[in-house]
Amino acid sequence: MRGKLIVFEGVEGCGKTTQIERSRLWLQDRGKAPVVVTREPGGTELGVALRHLLLAEQQHPIFPRAELLLYAADRAQHIEETIEPHLSQGAIVLCDRYTDSTVAYQGYGRGLSLELIERLNRIATSGTMSDLTLWLDVEVEIGLARAKARGKIDRFEQTELDFHRRVQQGYKELAQKYPHRIVRIDASRSEVEVQAQIQEICDRRGIGHRA
Amino acid sequence: MRGKLIVFEGVEGCGKTTQIERSRLWLQDRGKAPVVVTREPGGTELGVALRHLLLAEQQHPIFPRAELLLYAADRAQHIEETIEPHLSQGAIVLCDRYTDSTVAYQGYGRGLSLELIERLNRIATSGTMSDLTLWLDVEVEIGLARAKARGKIDRFEQTELDFHRRVQQGYKELAQKYPHRIVRIDASRSEVEVQAQIQEICDRRGIGHRA
Repeated sequence: MRGKLIVFEGVEGCGKTTQIERSRLWLQDRGKAPVVVTREPGGTELGVALRHLLLAEQQHPIFPRAELLLYAADRAQHIEETIEPHLSQGAIVLCDRYTDSTVAYQGYGRGLSLELIERLNRIATSGTMSDLTLWLDVEVEIGLARAKARGKIDRFEQTELDFHRRVQQGYKELAQKYPHRIVRIDASRSEVEVQAQIQEICDRRGIGHRA
Repeated sequence: MRGKLIVFEGVEGCGKTTQIERSRLWLQDRGKAPVVVTREPGGTELGVALRHLLLAEQQHPIFPRAELLLYAADRAQHIEETIEPHLSQGAIVLCDRYTDSTVAYQGYGRGLSLELIERLNRIATSGTMSDLTLWLDVEVEIGLARAKARGKIDRFEQTELDFHRRVQQGYKELAQKYPHRIVRIDASRSEVEVQAQIQEICDRRGIGHRA
């Protein structure tokens, strides 16, 4: 039986890393299917190199269109090298960010063409969509404060805040547009409570149940 | 006045490098416009990094779809960082390989989807096409023998020969499809004779003439 692709999405500090780890343990304990954790960008050898390129200080900045194409290349490699082989072996693949991140961050956040992003997402994925996308919804101020407390970011200024608000708006509109695929999780609550919501949704969808 | 983008295309050993250099000198001597030489992949800082990635031995090979997206990223950056700024300043840009190489090598040579390649070429270029593409047409056997004589390739086997014949066929069909943009040059002749053909075509098109 084909596995399931579960994607975790949300703004900085929404708790993705923690919830992916808790979900991995919970699903592994059920023992019904192998569980694989991966991420974008950087889920493959090529992806790690591209992630470095995308995040490195360049003498000449990378133009938005080239950047979108690099994210798409990372995604195409990730699908073929990692995600599809695991799905075809029946695994549950937990992925930290996927197509909706590109829409939310590059599209809503940075104002790049949503139509171009959707075209590239279609090319990169060859049609492999998430079976379930968990949008960990937390107020931008709370998320950024959490990230700051963990030392993950130094400080955030008004432009940063505005950027993340646009990203947040992107997730909101995506969740309205794809209500079956994307499920909103109230991520302002405690780790345990957030995980309980995730487990309930997975249960309801039969993820991790015996076939 | 907007400059001109002149692209040099052809199989291994067709003499692109030599003819680009001769054309550069000839156009510079005319002194009517600045002349810029560039290439794909690798015409920018990002492009050099991508060229390394594309040519490096990887533990996990790059899948064709990801490879096409990397070439497209290189091209998008090249257009925005190098080609368009020079064209808008009126320069004559001589480029070693461009969109037709992707069609000929990845499409005809390796059998990847021509429709996907065309879609990605449109995305990567934002519509910047060459004003003139000089296809240096030489028999595959002669080209490969020249490349071997220069120590650029060690040896070539039947599969290599077949691959380059398909690439050659790609150029032939492209030249038939876009007769105004792509001009065939008989590159089996001497360097001087090939350059004479190029100069004649440029003259006929008013390239390097005073505006």
